[in-house]
Amino acid sequence: MRSLRKTVLLAILVSVVLVLAILHSWPTRAYTTVDLWQRPGPGAERHLEERLPEPDHRSRDIPYRLRESVASLLARNGCMCEGERGGLKLPFTQLLFPRVSAHPLHTAFEASELEEMKRRRAKEYQSFQMRSQTAADVLIVAEANSPLQYPTQGVEVRPLKTILIPGLALQDLPKDHYSVNISAKLGTLNVAAEVEGVKVKGDGEPHMTLSSSLLPNLNRQLQYITYTNTLFHPSTADTVQFETEGHQAFFIIKIGHGVTPKLYNTGPKGEYNVSALVTIATKTFLRYDKLQDLIDSVRRYYPTVTIVIADDSENPKSVSGPYIEHYIMPFGKGWFAGRNLAVSQVTTKYVLWVDDDFIFTSNTKLERLVDVLERTTLDLVGGAVREATGYTATYRQTISIEPGEENGDCLHMRRGFHHVIKGFPNCVVTDGVINFFLARTDKVQQVGFDPRLARVAHLEFFIDGLGSLHVGSCDDVIVNHATKIKFPWASQSESDKTYTKFRYPPASSDATHTKNGLLFFKNRFQCLTRN
Amino acid sequence: MRSLRKTVLLAILVSVVLVLAILHSWPTRAYTTVDLWQRPGPGAERHLEERLPEPDHRSRDIPYRLRESVASLLARNGCMCEGERGGLKLPFTQLLFPRVSAHPLHTAFEASELEEMKRRRAKEYQSFQMRSQTAADVLIVAEANSPLQYPTQGVEVRPLKTILIPGLALQDLPKDHYSVNISAKLGTLNVAAEVEGVKVKGDGEPHMTLSSSLLPNLNRQLQYITYTNTLFHPSTADTVQFETEGHQAFFIIKIGHGVTPKLYNTGPKGEYNVSALVTIATKTFLRYDKLQDLIDSVRRYYPTVTIVIADDSENPKSVSGPYIEHYIMPFGKGWFAGRNLAVSQVTTKYVLWVDDDFIFTSNTKLERLVDVLERTTLDLVGGAVREATGYTATYRQTISIEPGEENGDCLHMRRGFHHVIKGFPNCVVTDGVINFFLARTDKVQQVGFDPRLARVAHLEFFIDGLGSLHVGSCDDVIVNHATKIKFPWASQSESDKTYTKFRYPPASSDATHTKNGLLFFKNRFQCLTRN
Repeated sequence: MRSLRKTVLLAILVSVVLVLAILHSWPTRAYTTVDLWQRPGPGAERHLEERLPEPDHRSRDIPYRLRESVASLLARNGCMCEGERGGLKLPFTQLLFPRVSAHPLHTAFEASELEEMKRRRAKEYQSFQMRSQTAADVLIVAEANSPLQYPTQGVEVRPLKTILIPGLALQDLPKDHYSVNISAKLGTLNVAAEVEGVKVKGDGEPHMTLSSSLLPNLNRQLQYITYTNTLFHPSTADTVQFETEGHQAFFIIKIGHGVTPKLYNTGPKGEYNVSALVTIATKTFLRYDKLQDLIDSVRRYYPTVTIVIADDSENPKSVSGPYIEHYIMPFGKGWFAGRNLAVSQVTTKYVLWVDDDFIFTSNTKLERLVDVLERTTLDLVGGAVREATGYTATYRQTISIEPGEENGDCLHMRRGFHHVIKGFPNCVVTDGVINFFLARTDKVQQVGFDPRLARVAHLEFFIDGLGSLHVGSCDDVIVNHATKIKFPWASQSESDKTYTKFRYPPASSDATHTKNGLLFFKNRFQCLTRN
Repeated sequence: MRSLRKTVLLAILVSVVLVLAILHSWPTRAYTTVDLWQRPGPGAERHLEERLPEPDHRSRDIPYRLRESVASLLARNGCMCEGERGGLKLPFTQLLFPRVSAHPLHTAFEASELEEMKRRRAKEYQSFQMRSQTAADVLIVAEANSPLQYPTQGVEVRPLKTILIPGLALQDLPKDHYSVNISAKLGTLNVAAEVEGVKVKGDGEPHMTLSSSLLPNLNRQLQYITYTNTLFHPSTADTVQFETEGHQAFFIIKIGHGVTPKLYNTGPKGEYNVSALVTIATKTFLRYDKLQDLIDSVRRYYPTVTIVIADDSENPKSVSGPYIEHYIMPFGKGWFAGRNLAVSQVTTKYVLWVDDDFIFTSNTKLERLVDVLERTTLDLVGGAVREATGYTATYRQTISIEPGEENGDCLHMRRGFHHVIKGFPNCVVTDGVINFFLARTDKVQQVGFDPRLARVAHLEFFIDGLGSLHVGSCDDVIVNHATKIKFPWASQSESDKTYTKFRYPPASSDATHTKNGLLFFKNRFQCLTRN
């Protein structure tokens, strides 16, 4: 018995030692290090020369004459903060002939803090640039009369994966010996097949050379070149150098996951099912009577559409009913914070923004707005708001940015639009619209309403959306605006007085400060011009 | 008197008629129409040939031999939903040697609704592709031995603005006469200066021809070519064709506003001011005691940092205190809806996500996480969560997408990371982390937490962030997890029971349905593999 027990114990001991030995010598993956420090990358400069080129020594004697009408359209160095001067100061001139006014934005800050603000902004901007620029932004010029054939765009690989590089070839004059080099920085080159008569050196490494005395064989080999990304980054680009004696070419390979779609279920096909496709979103503050009027008017036409309400009133009342979602916020948290909250809760394909003092009528046909977004590439389409006087506004605004230099860019806003939309004669393409619009939920959530804007703000959403929102406006879908006409003899209710205090703050208060201060700091503008 | 009055009336009448005539004939801008209908654009196909090329007639006789080790790395046609088979089924094998399991996602749907779901998904995906692809995605190959010199990337113009096209030249053999054509689709070409000896035709139009008998003069003229975008789109690309006799080249000009920065004020320089830089965000449901423990533990180390709490409990209690923001949601609205709400309210540069049952300790040094994001290009950095047993988890996951065909893509998740970060030996680069992380607020708001995910969900946020979030994980910043160990003899409180019912729903309920159903429909996956 004792010797059996000893044997068993010994067996256990040996097994344990064996297992430990196996685990210890289990091949652990050798991890490489990656440098992610924020510093300017090599060649990350953009050289887009917008100055008219100076003649070099070869063309110095060739006479030329400037064409002012065209040269004046080119961007200048930096932008100037200027409006339109002069004009008659008669009544209604601003209405009939709106003049452009210019607003320098640094005035949002006290003189004492301005230098510090500029320094901080420059530091944040530099970080931002280092994170957002890649080799895909750099200017590359293709050499003429080069025997190299290569892809100039469209080559993409997923991170750490492998692809065949398309389109490589050498179309050289007859020679005894042909040789090409291919190099990359964030990955390695290899061959997916070995072609007879071609010598390959450096396969599996960042720099590979192929050589042969037979040009057709070399070109066949060039059809099997692979690139493998080895340095992980979720969204970047590698610069590949392709060269032969006397000639060089550069092209980039985009490295990234591609855009993952964010699709929404649309409900059964057939007519547009507004309840399945649209959620109504609004923000309210101290105006429960107006809010209830809005809800009642919506229910007359759309009994089952979900209404999301963000509420930062001081003593929130209950707002309930089927398909109503009421969210309570800290008191006075703010206008854009409330807007951002409301849209963050939407689960349908589209979201309809309304103000809490709108009234739906038989002209408020949401199906028409859905039709526009279903059939065009627009991301957002505004409607029209009718005042008690009958005056109907679409508030269309075009927005453009003129690049500045260290002081910041210039933001230009003008009333109007760009084009009429083919097939939708009541609709146009523009950049900003009134606060009654239908939009793709995923795009609005992506742009967002900046919660730093506590009080009066509107176009800031469209400024943040520039380049990502494709905006339209149709004037045949109309919602009514509960009257704002204040008769001098009517006394204001307490809640009206509080509302006014928060909604229309005096000019020198934080609200204006925040709006212009944000344009200055967050978006890096120096000037805003508008008419 | 009467004749004077008549004269005055006549003068007024004439003035009114004049004014009306002027207003009527005021030159109204002629608006052009734009076609925004969703239909496949010309040349929007991507030709990235990942199949190994078949030999053409010229190279049919050249022998070659496949290199399996490399060829096998190339993407196949479509992806297969397979895990790893076999392996010993001993205790702890899944722990020591985690096997990969594969989950087909169409099983989220009843057989009867699957076809309809696939049809709808395909329609939504086609729309999405039409809205997101541009001419900048197409494969372009540069011809060899072409006398044309031209820019292959880096040329950008703001919508409706004008730029000089850089890098154009003709390096031809001596001839009597030289001629080049330049054409665009979304804009017009022109010259900013007229060079002697060069004939220009079609200036101001989409197709322009330059000709000359003197090559140096033609090349000087080519330095003054301008492009003006005339068809408005906020983010697209125009294809420019540049040709001379016998040779053609294509390049694109990107049209867009550029990326408008969204910078945050960081507070005074010096040491990291956590209260100015960080907002803590969390979601709570029926666990006010644990939430209060969290808040008390945070306040021990960070007395003035703002804490944002999204709360969808049935009978919400008041949670108050300085720098506490409490948001009340409709009962049971959901986990990701609450996360999306909380982050939508953050106004600081960084947001720290915590679960409501975490406890801060002296090891929870937020300054260390801020340091990582301030000094690297990471957008998000996870920490570590320590259980009562002492076991500390970082839950690092790598995520990749393998493109499929009509059935959808395959999503692969594996435990682990990509690289160690230089200069931060406790930190690595990965794709998904545990629910304790610091991140750039603007990036997290841009990715968002999909409010359609009501119950159990975690990596869905990182899947939605693929390609836009650069993710890291450091194991030296640790938060404690309030114990989840349930002793069999301890009775559950009522709120614990309700919590469990909502948090851990039975396998066949909506939660699993929604998670896999969303991966199938929203992100267009057919399969998920993980270990």
